[in-house]
Amino acid sequence: MDAFAQLEATIADRLRADPGSSYVASLAAKGRAKIAQKVGEEAVETVIAAIADDRAGLVGEAADLMFHLTVLLHHMGLGLDDVRAELARREGVSGLVEKAGRAS
Amino acid sequence: MDAFAQLEATIADRLRADPGSSYVASLAAKGRAKIAQKVGEEAVETVIAAIADDRAGLVGEAADLMFHLTVLLHHMGLGLDDVRAELARREGVSGLVEKAGRAS
Amino acid sequence: MDAFAQLEATIADRLRADPGSSYVASLAAKGRAKIAQKVGEEAVETVIAAIADDRAGLVGEAADLMFHLTVLLHHMGLGLDDVRAELARREGVSGLVEKAGRAS
Amino acid sequence: MDAFAQLEATIADRLRADPGSSYVASLAAKGRAKIAQKVGEEAVETVIAAIADDRAGLVGEAADLMFHLTVLLHHMGLGLDDVRAELARREGVSGLVEKAGRAS
Repeated sequence: MDAFAQLEATIADRLRADPGSSYVASLAAKGRAKIAQKVGEEAVETVIAAIADDRAGLVGEAADLMFHLTVLLHHMGLGLDDVRAELARREGVSGLVEKAGRAS
Repeated sequence: MDAFAQLEATIADRLRADPGSSYVASLAAKGRAKIAQKVGEEAVETVIAAIADDRAGLVGEAADLMFHLTVLLHHMGLGLDDVRAELARREGVSGLVEKAGRAS
Repeated sequence: MDAFAQLEATIADRLRADPGSSYVASLAAKGRAKIAQKVGEEAVETVIAAIADDRAGLVGEAADLMFHLTVLLHHMGLGLDDVRAELARREGVSGLVEKAGRAS
Repeated sequence: MDAFAQLEATIADRLRADPGSSYVASLAAKGRAKIAQKVGEEAVETVIAAIADDRAGLVGEAADLMFHLTVLLHHMGLGLDDVRAELARREGVSGLVEKAGRAS
């Protein structure tokens, strides 16, 4: 299974778990603002790893960022497929723009 | 093709394009700090959409965030597969921890 | 006049100006989320300047951050004096804690 | 004494303290990136308080942000006076622009 799909399955599972036994459930119990705050914090750490040219650090922070972004999406009844659909929609538009450019 | 794979293929392609004709090439030409700054900015907008309970906005900002995070990874010779490997590694560790917990 | 007091006076003045002729009025007209977004963005640039060890850049970004933070405070009917009062309250508490520590 | 001046005096004092007994000394001992990270995190919390229309929360987060921004400035051999000088310089430029505008 793709690691992002596995991540989503794990998060969906943990969101139904007891806040006392799961980090995801405990974070979700603190509410939307706390999950969003974690997304912001992991992005700050991602930025710092990039500027410090820390490749291993960047991978770790990007994983933390994907993790918390996925929790946030699920907390709002969304998922990575909604993000994929938006990216595919833009790719289509971008492709059309490119073709139009070539035609002119 | 998975939209994230398509995104990476497009970004890899555009990174070789002329900065005058491509947003990705133009951003990359401004250097690492500028790409990282965009990751930070899109994360701030993601946070705001979440707190404002704007579901469509969250999907759009999450797509922007994934886009710029992927550009940043590629600018450092990395890709989403490195993030997937890190997530899979953690899932493995987490699975082991869970099994150990069940055994005790 | 202290530069922060001058900054607040200028911002208070511009908030009453025409959005077409003033950056502050134009930003305020876009609403709370847009002002908050600018605070987040300037903080990201402050972080980047610090990690890049860019002293002149840090001063410029810190000035941008103070500027937008002050606009945000005023947009919520607050000001730097509210922040000063909070800092003074903490300093008092901290002083008491320190004295208590010395006494024990 | 102005609360910002008091804040700077306290921070300058604590930076010389033992990391075991002072939060500021302990944070500084972790290095520049950790201080910058705190500035980013407090900015995220400031953004969240503003969007959530939490006035008391905004004052608290703005105080945290000023605190960590001042630690960061001092860690780079700078201070709030450098930020004041930059703001005064801009105010001068802005004043000149305004006068030029009135003259035309």
